[in-house]
Amino acid sequence: MNQLCRVMLLVSIAACSLSASAQFAKPEDAIKYRKSALTVMGTHFGRLGAMAQGRVPFDAKAAADNADIVANMAKLPWAAFVEGTDSGDTKAKPEIWKQSAKFKEAADKLQAESIKLAAAAHSGKEDAFKAAFTATAGTCKSCHDDFRAK
Amino acid sequence: MNQLCRVMLLVSIAACSLSASAQFAKPEDAIKYRKSALTVMGTHFGRLGAMAQGRVPFDAKAAADNADIVANMAKLPWAAFVEGTDSGDTKAKPEIWKQSAKFKEAADKLQAESIKLAAAAHSGKEDAFKAAFTATAGTCKSCHDDFRAK
Repeated sequence: MNQLCRVMLLVSIAACSLSASAQFAKPEDAIKYRKSALTVMGTHFGRLGAMAQGRVPFDAKAAADNADIVANMAKLPWAAFVEGTDSGDTKAKPEIWKQSAKFKEAADKLQAESIKLAAAAHSGKEDAFKAAFTATAGTCKSCHDDFRAK
Repeated sequence: MNQLCRVMLLVSIAACSLSASAQFAKPEDAIKYRKSALTVMGTHFGRLGAMAQGRVPFDAKAAADNADIVANMAKLPWAAFVEGTDSGDTKAKPEIWKQSAKFKEAADKLQAESIKLAAAAHSGKEDAFKAAFTATAGTCKSCHDDFRAK
């Protein structure tokens, strides 16, 4: 590799890292953002759970509304798991960055299941909704087990 | 008003208050939720602001994506301003509950402007986007001036 080539490579890497993290001015902004997105998602997911587990009666409209929000929120947190945000006010494990392909797969799984959950909720069929809820909840748990500290 | 009527009225009022606040188990859950929704909205609104104010170049795709998220998030915080959540870790002013019609109007204005902002962003026209951004930012400021403590 010649010198020019090496310099260009380094500049490109720097530019790519910058564009990934420039969305957040400071590491703590990224941490606050992703926790916020997960809090909103978790709140609506909890309401679905109350219906799926029979603690409140199944209400097709409420299920559809909450599942739509979950499916929308499920897209957001991942872009905020940028390099350099593994410490501070976060339970994020270093494995997120050490096993980034596995982490991305887990995030993709949640998004795919939450889209199916919204479709099941919109069908108005309680059994389909419950099954889709269980499948989605499994993706939350699996990702938390691997990537979130207790 | 006879006794039965009075009892039924009280039961109805209790049931209505319950259904409004039962979405959140504790006041601090409602506060955390609404702050989280506003944090996510504010992050994406900030990215639109950077483009509207020329700090980063206008990018039609990024503008549309961020504006869609803002329009979605703008629906969420208001249901969490339930009675009994005016103290604790919050800058919410008592005026939110004392002037609830005015607060609702402010929340509705943001939602209406953010839908127009998303439409302007999707048009790909930078001038329309900038004008809609300014209009939406005005609704944020006005509501913060009236209802958020410094």
